[in-house]
Amino acid sequence: MITSVTHQYDGAIQQVIDNKTKPMGALGMLESLARQLASIQSHRLAQLCTKISLSKPTMLVFAGDHGIAQHGVSIAPSDVTHQMVHNFLAGGAAINCFCRTNHIDFYVVDAGIQTEIDEVTVAAHPELIIQRLGAGTADFSSQPAMTPEQVRQGLNFGKQAAQRILDQGCELLMFGEMGIANTSAASALFAALSDVPVVATVGRGTGISIEQLNQKQQLIQQALMRFSGRAPLDVLAEVGGFEIVQMIGAMQACAERKIPMLIDGFIVSVAAFVATQLDANIRDYLIFAHCSDESAHRILLGKLVAKPILDLSLRLGEGTGAALAFPILASAASFYNDMASFESAGVTV
Amino acid sequence: MITSVTHQYDGAIQQVIDNKTKPMGALGMLESLARQLASIQSHRLAQLCTKISLSKPTMLVFAGDHGIAQHGVSIAPSDVTHQMVHNFLAGGAAINCFCRTNHIDFYVVDAGIQTEIDEVTVAAHPELIIQRLGAGTADFSSQPAMTPEQVRQGLNFGKQAAQRILDQGCELLMFGEMGIANTSAASALFAALSDVPVVATVGRGTGISIEQLNQKQQLIQQALMRFSGRAPLDVLAEVGGFEIVQMIGAMQACAERKIPMLIDGFIVSVAAFVATQLDANIRDYLIFAHCSDESAHRILLGKLVAKPILDLSLRLGEGTGAALAFPILASAASFYNDMASFESAGVTV
Repeated sequence: MITSVTHQYDGAIQQVIDNKTKPMGALGMLESLARQLASIQSHRLAQLCTKISLSKPTMLVFAGDHGIAQHGVSIAPSDVTHQMVHNFLAGGAAINCFCRTNHIDFYVVDAGIQTEIDEVTVAAHPELIIQRLGAGTADFSSQPAMTPEQVRQGLNFGKQAAQRILDQGCELLMFGEMGIANTSAASALFAALSDVPVVATVGRGTGISIEQLNQKQQLIQQALMRFSGRAPLDVLAEVGGFEIVQMIGAMQACAERKIPMLIDGFIVSVAAFVATQLDANIRDYLIFAHCSDESAHRILLGKLVAKPILDLSLRLGEGTGAALAFPILASAASFYNDMASFESAGVTV
Repeated sequence: MITSVTHQYDGAIQQVIDNKTKPMGALGMLESLARQLASIQSHRLAQLCTKISLSKPTMLVFAGDHGIAQHGVSIAPSDVTHQMVHNFLAGGAAINCFCRTNHIDFYVVDAGIQTEIDEVTVAAHPELIIQRLGAGTADFSSQPAMTPEQVRQGLNFGKQAAQRILDQGCELLMFGEMGIANTSAASALFAALSDVPVVATVGRGTGISIEQLNQKQQLIQQALMRFSGRAPLDVLAEVGGFEIVQMIGAMQACAERKIPMLIDGFIVSVAAFVATQLDANIRDYLIFAHCSDESAHRILLGKLVAKPILDLSLRLGEGTGAALAFPILASAASFYNDMASFESAGVTV
């Protein structure tokens, strides 16, 4: 069960912040972040959190392939998903660099990429979690991407992966994704579950041409005409993705344990959006890392009433925006935890 | 002598970036930051920089007091500058928290605060650099804030402090400031040295009332009517500040040695603006950390053709925005240095 964060400690938390040696509100967004983290942890502790703890910050990247990729809606073929998982395991991707620089633990989940990772590689990489729902989803432009059973199983797989990491003492989970054509799935989900028209939910991904963009919009329009139900789980089966559904399960597991989450770009934000439609209480545990260059992301963040920490024109995915925003969260915790009060510092403002 | 960064390596640097395993341009602003850092360091090395190095990143906070404070143009009295220097030395200020969290070395310069720091404290704190130009500036609403000799000496002091730090191997210097009423000096400098009217250069600092804001604007208008010369050094003497002039000297020293600088909020940006008026070549070495909540800061960044990394509604100073932006620079360096190329990773996009 996911419970909403209590407001019981709001006043006490604000007092901690306002007693720090700085003008009221002068740390801007750092103060909102500290408030949110302290609220979540007070709720978890059932008493005022005087020290925010973000032990073992962890990045969990979900990888999956998409049948729709065969229509050329991405700049790259599905093979690249597999190659990038190898790149993650070799430590050569952007997300690896940012996790190393910012001292973030890293895991990648094969949620169902087209070609399996070979056994030798799997055995050599404890950071690789295998929980495949298949060899890529079906092409959602003409048929449901997943079966209801795959959706159910995907939510469970995602929960299990998150729970395992939380069991090791992780107090902040970050999500990333890798999957050629997954902006198509994300855009379709966003359009199907909101009042935003397809033309506004579909963008240029990592950099497709205008022709590809038109094709992408058309295929998504076509898919959305196929079904009329708007229940989130049904929509997930119709146009979702293996990595997206597992991410939603992982988010649910975090919220159940009252663990804050740092949400990356458009695709992870769509997963978070679907999660809020399944249970609105989850919103309290979500922190939005950045606004990406994918045009629909800003609209989506608006729907989620989310003020992102960064705005760096990123359009890479992998969790890179979340890894880059993490040090700002860590700094928010540090001022809340360690900054002197007016009294302790003898400052007389 | 400050030389402009050569464009000789631009093509080679762009090739390094474009060969990384990511879609072209997908790391957005991180790519511009890597380009700027690699350009500066290629220029310094006189060959292509293939590994950006940001050893010993250091925050240098300049503190000074301002005669204009006696008119109540700030939320706090001048005593607070002294108290905050003590707070810095005790490690209890926001900037200390952010430097610790982000592994940044910290120094504070007494550039001329009202009350000297006692000898015992000075002796106990090697991170405190004493180079006082006086016990606060004169009240610039009725007389020049500094003598020409203080300006000259201030530039030298600033240079010396920076050189000492660079001699220790620092490859990225960040600037911060502390000085009650120093937004008044900064606003006056910005108005005097640009076509922006006082009403637009003056803001609410760390949070003054409308009455204080009116008073602040009036005093600055009054000061600017007193003199007609617009040579940067003359204007600095008229309405500048001890911490501002020393910062300018420190910036010059960095640029002379081709060391990149991370610029904090409004006051540090004004110092950078004056430095660019003294020598336009310095601009190549400046990286702008954030856009603060001080309304004139956005206008000033526009004048400097600067795209700030962060926009977190900060209005604290101390270098806090720069310390928060530093990990993003470090991540830009890490992807440039360590991310796999398409070839090395076997990715076939």
